[in-house]
Amino acid sequence: MANLHDVAHELEKNLRESEEYQGLKEAYEAVMADDASKKMFDNFRETQIQLQQKQMQGEDISEEEVEKARKTVELVQQNEKISKLMEKEQHLNNVINDISRIITKPLEELYAE
Amino acid sequence: MANLHDVAHELEKNLRESEEYQGLKEAYEAVMADDASKKMFDNFRETQIQLQQKQMQGEDISEEEVEKARKTVELVQQNEKISKLMEKEQHLNNVINDISRIITKPLEELYAE
Ligand SMILES: [Ca+2]
Ligand SMILES: [Ca+2]
Repeated sequence: MANLHDVAHELEKNLRESEEYQGLKEAYEAVMADDASKKMFDNFRETQIQLQQKQMQGEDISEEEVEKARKTVELVQQNEKISKLMEKEQHLNNVINDISRIITKPLEELYAE
Repeated sequence: MANLHDVAHELEKNLRESEEYQGLKEAYEAVMADDASKKMFDNFRETQIQLQQKQMQGEDISEEEVEKARKTVELVQQNEKISKLMEKEQHLNNVINDISRIITKPLEELYAE
């Protein structure tokens, strides 16, 4: 495992230095530095987490809650700093999904045999 | 991204050569080479996938289905080749979870700010 851990740490370093991560970090700091955007973003994250928890626990989600979530999304999309952050999150997600597909290829191959 | 991809491929190579992956591969081949074990394992996987799909779609799972799944698990646990395979799967999962924790550390740090 020693070697595997070394390479994983090398990958972490590369990810941290990547344009995609640096862009996300900048966008995140910009949201955090602006009080109104930060409040809106915190509220959005909280709403998302609450809905996810309900879904995971198999609880019913009321129409009111769906409507509230929809409005929260609409609101953050109109905030320039937050929409930029979400765009950068998507970019980094793509990078991480790419990496994940590459490193789990041996497993995929095995079970396809 | 060029460098990131290179390092990801290096990690994939290391994972493929690891004791944990080679052990899993051997255990999987042993199950596949034995007709009775293969049939039992295929049946087990199919039952698992069906239950997961129902859960994901929020469908109700009957007591009969739970009982059937429980029996399938009991059966595969008594099969030496399959229990060895499941043990090796757990080992590789631990390795992959370790790697995943390492490479997503920059993200975790960012959102903890
Ligand atoms: Ca900060
Ligand atoms: Ca084979």
